[in-house]
Amino acid sequence: PINADRLWDSLAEMAKIGATAKGGSCRLALSDEDKAGRDLFVSWCEAAGCTVSIDRVGNIFARRKGRDDSLPPVVMGSHLDTQPTGGRFDGVFGVLAALEVVRSLNDRGVETLHPVEVAVWTNEEGSRFSPPMMGSGVVTGVFTLEEILDQVAQDGARLGDELVRTGYAGEASVDHPMHAYLEAHIEQGPVLEVEGKEIGVVTGAQGQRWYEVTVTGVEAHAGPTPMRLRRDALVAASAMVLAVQRIGLETDGDPCTTVGILDVHPHSRNVIPGRVFFTVDLRHPDANTLADMDRRFRAAVAEIAEQQGVSAEIADFWHFPPTPFAKPLVDRVREAASGFGFSHRDIVSGAGHDAVYVAGKVPTAMIFIPCEDGISHNEVENISPADGARGAAVLFETLVATAGR
Amino acid sequence: PINADRLWDSLAEMAKIGATAKGGSCRLALSDEDKAGRDLFVSWCEAAGCTVSIDRVGNIFARRKGRDDSLPPVVMGSHLDTQPTGGRFDGVFGVLAALEVVRSLNDRGVETLHPVEVAVWTNEEGSRFSPPMMGSGVVTGVFTLEEILDQVAQDGARLGDELVRTGYAGEASVDHPMHAYLEAHIEQGPVLEVEGKEIGVVTGAQGQRWYEVTVTGVEAHAGPTPMRLRRDALVAASAMVLAVQRIGLETDGDPCTTVGILDVHPHSRNVIPGRVFFTVDLRHPDANTLADMDRRFRAAVAEIAEQQGVSAEIADFWHFPPTPFAKPLVDRVREAASGFGFSHRDIVSGAGHDAVYVAGKVPTAMIFIPCEDGISHNEVENISPADGARGAAVLFETLVATAGR
Ligand SMILES: NC(=O)NCCC(=O)O
Ligand SMILES: NC(=O)NCCC(=O)O
Repeated sequence: PINADRLWDSLAEMAKIGATAKGGSCRLALSDEDKAGRDLFVSWCEAAGCTVSIDRVGNIFARRKGRDDSLPPVVMGSHLDTQPTGGRFDGVFGVLAALEVVRSLNDRGVETLHPVEVAVWTNEEGSRFSPPMMGSGVVTGVFTLEEILDQVAQDGARLGDELVRTGYAGEASVDHPMHAYLEAHIEQGPVLEVEGKEIGVVTGAQGQRWYEVTVTGVEAHAGPTPMRLRRDALVAASAMVLAVQRIGLETDGDPCTTVGILDVHPHSRNVIPGRVFFTVDLRHPDANTLADMDRRFRAAVAEIAEQQGVSAEIADFWHFPPTPFAKPLVDRVREAASGFGFSHRDIVSGAGHDAVYVAGKVPTAMIFIPCEDGISHNEVENISPADGARGAAVLFETLVATAGR
Repeated sequence: PINADRLWDSLAEMAKIGATAKGGSCRLALSDEDKAGRDLFVSWCEAAGCTVSIDRVGNIFARRKGRDDSLPPVVMGSHLDTQPTGGRFDGVFGVLAALEVVRSLNDRGVETLHPVEVAVWTNEEGSRFSPPMMGSGVVTGVFTLEEILDQVAQDGARLGDELVRTGYAGEASVDHPMHAYLEAHIEQGPVLEVEGKEIGVVTGAQGQRWYEVTVTGVEAHAGPTPMRLRRDALVAASAMVLAVQRIGLETDGDPCTTVGILDVHPHSRNVIPGRVFFTVDLRHPDANTLADMDRRFRAAVAEIAEQQGVSAEIADFWHFPPTPFAKPLVDRVREAASGFGFSHRDIVSGAGHDAVYVAGKVPTAMIFIPCEDGISHNEVENISPADGARGAAVLFETLVATAGR
């Protein structure tokens, strides 16, 4: 029901903005590149006859009228921001598949009962500004608008100021009515590809716990300080990184444990590090197991700190529990996939998505498509045009069934 | 023979420049603070009747005429630059003790046969610009002037440009004649304090090998990427940091092994690190043992890289072999200490010093004084005024004996 070539061309056009050396994308949230990507998206939506509104946290909603325009919209969407060395499909695919659905509704002259909207959520990645899923978190009341506007980026910029600078400090209320929410996304893992499935019917997302750890030892000279007298913050932090990995290797189910940022102070070749800061990301589909991982992590940090004669502070930075999606809507995704004869399987999302926050407010479902070698958050991230077209087709069918005729 | 109060006052005055929150000093090489420290030193030397010259790599030489001024000078000196969170005595003590010797020669109307000079060497620390001991390395032919002028700092500045900016791109040739070289310094380790010795008679310096290691894994999403499929550059680098520590703990003699810098890419909380850069510093007083440590280090990096499915490249960054000082001059230091009735012991320097490079060209010796808790490269670095006065007195005696009457 959709135009596969048009979808692919739009993905290629968007990928020119912030293109990186190895074929990926760098459009960090509210950077110049993110602004350029948003501007291009808005121009496409206006060309498709949509009315575009921007809310106070910079979320974009492009609206196609419904037969009863007083009803709340069925919203499709995702994000346009990327990781520093991100791919061309993470987020972008969901936004442009949604736009393709709107364009196809226009082509076929389909009227829906509910209005239909395409949403671009602000800062889903949580890289330049942290935590992730900020725009959807504000709209669903997880975060206050004020706390998010005051977030400071890795590069020192304030989010509220970057919204103004890029022209996306909108006037619309963040209290946005929605009838239901649908998000198409690449899987970002290997399961669908390995099993040869064309569509992932996402039943929910695994839980996440993010932490910040600060290890404090004693700065001293790398030369005349005997090994036994050292309180080396980096040696301790390195043991903690390995302990985090061990929790991931030894826990049952599908755990994920990662240290993505680690900063050493004073950062001098011949000074024993006196302070190390690092981030930890623990994930599991089961809430009790995630709680166990949390306990094991805290115990390991305390034990290593004691052994190495350093102190370590753990700050809870962000978390969300394992989150199920709305069964009737998930069933509708499965039926749409079956209806097209696409091979499919139920799957739990390993990543957080704006859909996780929106699911707390309105019925929500997601559609996954395979990605090459299961690789994401990497410039080489890739999908096949046929997989993209299948995901957009399932989104089209689910949207029409949900928005009504 | 010296004025202890004047020495202590000058140390306190210099410590005001680049003073840090915790009582230390930050005068990174050729920063605004380093320039201010150099300017103050030059003004003091001129007030003491010295003629000041600056060479092309920014080394400062303050000269007091000799009875036969055509003879090469006996040079005393050290450095004024510090670590990012450095102490008030590392380097500074040697420079201001040398100035105090000159002031005391003036007070007492002592004429020396050889001229006497106080040297301030450019970038001894090797922190902002690396490697260390650049100024003395150029004067002794270890480095070419051109390669040093082209060095780029951690902050992106070029050394040659920073010399011009701070007014220390001098005209004097780097081929500087010297009759002998004497350097007083804090021990920067715990040996003298633990044994209750007042003076360390430095017989030489242990050897050092510095490396840069780049670990390359595969960036991927911290969520949906199964633990077993990861090629996490930070997990591998962490195991390497612990292996470096293990070499230090398990080698006989007095080994030191340190990782002081470690940088993670792409530096995002939810991206498995694809690349990690870190520096390694291995030291030992015995050349064969240092060679063993080098072999063990390379083998450990290769083995861990293999285990973790990443690649690792080791670049040799800098090294110097264990370096003995000139026996007659070392004996003279020991005699001076004994002459004053100061308790003393022979000691091998754990740190590199400008004296190490100068020792390759002219007879060289060093005098150590204890520092509190053996702590250096730390803002809390401290000495007692009495220890400082003893070190300056031994320097005075050794200088007069070497420069002749
Ligand atoms: N899809 C995605 O990359 N989301 C960012 C939040 C997370 O790390 O799970
Ligand atoms: N004294 C001193 O801190 N020198 C720097 C070179 C080294 O790290 O040994």
